[in-house]
Amino acid sequence: MIDETHDPGLTSWVEPANEPGIDFPIQNLPLGIFRTRENPTPRAGIAIGDFVLDASEWIPGTTLDGYMALPQSDRRDIRHRISRALEKGAVTRGLLSQTDCEMLLPGTIGDYTDFYASIHHARAVGSIFRPENPLLPNYKHVPIGYHGRASSVVVSGTGVRRPSGQLGAGIFGPTQQLDYELELGAWVGPGNALGEPIPISHADRHIVGVCLLNDWSARDIQRWEYQPLGPFLGKNFCTSASPWLVTWEALAPFRTTPAEHETPVLPYLQSAGADALTITLEVFIRTQDLGEPVQVSSASFRDMYWTIPQMIAHHTSNGCPLRPCDLLGSGTVSGSDGNAGGCLLELTRNGSKVLQLTASVRRCYLEDGDEVILRGYCNASGFRRIGFGVCSGRILTACMESLAGRRDAF
Amino acid sequence: MIDETHDPGLTSWVEPANEPGIDFPIQNLPLGIFRTRENPTPRAGIAIGDFVLDASEWIPGTTLDGYMALPQSDRRDIRHRISRALEKGAVTRGLLSQTDCEMLLPGTIGDYTDFYASIHHARAVGSIFRPENPLLPNYKHVPIGYHGRASSVVVSGTGVRRPSGQLGAGIFGPTQQLDYELELGAWVGPGNALGEPIPISHADRHIVGVCLLNDWSARDIQRWEYQPLGPFLGKNFCTSASPWLVTWEALAPFRTTPAEHETPVLPYLQSAGADALTITLEVFIRTQDLGEPVQVSSASFRDMYWTIPQMIAHHTSNGCPLRPCDLLGSGTVSGSDGNAGGCLLELTRNGSKVLQLTASVRRCYLEDGDEVILRGYCNASGFRRIGFGVCSGRILTACMESLAGRRDAF
Repeated sequence: MIDETHDPGLTSWVEPANEPGIDFPIQNLPLGIFRTRENPTPRAGIAIGDFVLDASEWIPGTTLDGYMALPQSDRRDIRHRISRALEKGAVTRGLLSQTDCEMLLPGTIGDYTDFYASIHHARAVGSIFRPENPLLPNYKHVPIGYHGRASSVVVSGTGVRRPSGQLGAGIFGPTQQLDYELELGAWVGPGNALGEPIPISHADRHIVGVCLLNDWSARDIQRWEYQPLGPFLGKNFCTSASPWLVTWEALAPFRTTPAEHETPVLPYLQSAGADALTITLEVFIRTQDLGEPVQVSSASFRDMYWTIPQMIAHHTSNGCPLRPCDLLGSGTVSGSDGNAGGCLLELTRNGSKVLQLTASVRRCYLEDGDEVILRGYCNASGFRRIGFGVCSGRILTACMESLAGRRDAF
Repeated sequence: MIDETHDPGLTSWVEPANEPGIDFPIQNLPLGIFRTRENPTPRAGIAIGDFVLDASEWIPGTTLDGYMALPQSDRRDIRHRISRALEKGAVTRGLLSQTDCEMLLPGTIGDYTDFYASIHHARAVGSIFRPENPLLPNYKHVPIGYHGRASSVVVSGTGVRRPSGQLGAGIFGPTQQLDYELELGAWVGPGNALGEPIPISHADRHIVGVCLLNDWSARDIQRWEYQPLGPFLGKNFCTSASPWLVTWEALAPFRTTPAEHETPVLPYLQSAGADALTITLEVFIRTQDLGEPVQVSSASFRDMYWTIPQMIAHHTSNGCPLRPCDLLGSGTVSGSDGNAGGCLLELTRNGSKVLQLTASVRRCYLEDGDEVILRGYCNASGFRRIGFGVCSGRILTACMESLAGRRDAF
């Protein structure tokens, strides 16, 4: 629903928010949980320009858990009140520089589910491991997903310890194929009771907003362990999420009708809604040799095969309960172009093709000290650009015990 | 550590607890969360004979979350104090009949992980779907596990709604292959920080206790969806847990050294401890035609290929954080004998062989109205038998919308 909060002519008394090309103009109003040195109690904030506005007046508590449980109409109402306050300047207290704020995860993640919604990614990965049969027969019928680990989801900026694990029969050590995965995350709203599916026509009531997500992966561990029950230790050592929840309401101008599929889907996955999102997602790598991050890929979330409402309808179709603050990952976002791969597994064809970052710096997989930075933004004619901020993580050396080959004493 | 709380001569002033063959003598002292009609506030209790003793004096709060986070020595101390109180009769208030108590889940499950630790089960299932290659090459090296769904874990006694889902390309409806899985669950204690593995020698400090677990499965949904990322909607509609947490301390007399493996394991999985458990696990089915439950299988947890300490060491070997009140499932517990299969998939060879419950009642998979009851107990020479109570669930008809074929209006 596009309304006055999306008016491109709207400006804020927080002047830097009116500059062109920034991520957080008054049309965005993403929510996050922050704390400061002066006041270490976590509380809700709104990103506006380079600032954080304390939002505890509208959203009480130390997490967004309660906010996420609210009905969609209440969440819309809060957006309207914040928009008016930032337009008219009724608020002056509680404005903090973003650099003075430590951002935390928005809430207490109950369950984290990761999908596999990019057909370009599925096909590219399939062609590496099963050249004769890249896309499995279920792909165009089932929005494939699996359960990830809630306990290892961390906020952007947290260091990413290189995991150790079994790299094959009788081999244990730090992963030699550490990868990132460019994903979009969706924060779940009120949710459903056990045994009561959410019909796709109601799905968007249960989407609070989105963030950037990096589902770090150890490809060698994953390859050895994943049959027959799927990825486990190759994934659950770390998943990084950007701190700013860009609300479903803010995304209204960038929603669009999904491309029609040649293969029809079952009625419970059919929707007449503008369920696809036009979001550009980008990956940058900064190595210790490089001062500036180098862009390695760009893809559009518009090209995903499955939409977020389809993920919600599918996930609950068997009665599985979603709860407020559950996190859904989209799976790696890749484009059809070979340079639009959302992970190094794709870009380097499993390490067989070198990725040239600069004339002298190249990568197959990530090295210690590398920082991966995800960015995302939405553009649409007649609307202000809105952005997602960043989701970053830097690779830390594997822990010493692992490097020493796991002596008995460990 | 076997101590005076395990003395088989110990008796309680709660007389029925001294009768032979019962599940809850004074040597057991399992913990749970209960409430009553008169006092609906959830609180901690101890099962003793046919009674529940209010344990809020020793374990405050409305869940066992806080108790599970305690160091092992504090948990041992609480066991000793409760044992003395029930021996000497210092306590008289707070004794309630079990039939007057509603049991709840012991705590707030953070993450639920399910393993695949029975080689007999892995081999039997493998031989159905991959006769040429029943056991995958990683099985004897990696304690295979995957993430399950925390939000759909329910307490024993909760009805199990038959899930609907995709049964193949273009087919949606109630599962035709609804199955149970006989498992042991382990409740996790203090846990570890992100990036800091738990060495196997410390693993048992992080095991609070065990319960019975039924990981209900829809085999047709599972078969169609599970490639390449593992089971999802075929599993996450319901998992039932028995309410009584039998503590790791109570299990001390029934711990034993695991059978040696022909294939050596990596050092991080090697332990000199008595890490295997001698527990007999049984499955009963009661159909609507039968007054009494019929036993369909029995297996020993002693026959598992991987131990619970190995699961903990493996799970954290990459730095993945375990948290208090996480739940680990063992995977289906099957014996080497074909009649010791812990699920109908095994016992009926995927529905191709009929299971005869009585002369007139037979099953391939579960039908609406069937109740599945799991039981478990430990016996060892020189010690009192202790039991786990029951984990039961009855199959409810699929929801009407699914039966009606999911009309658009739904």
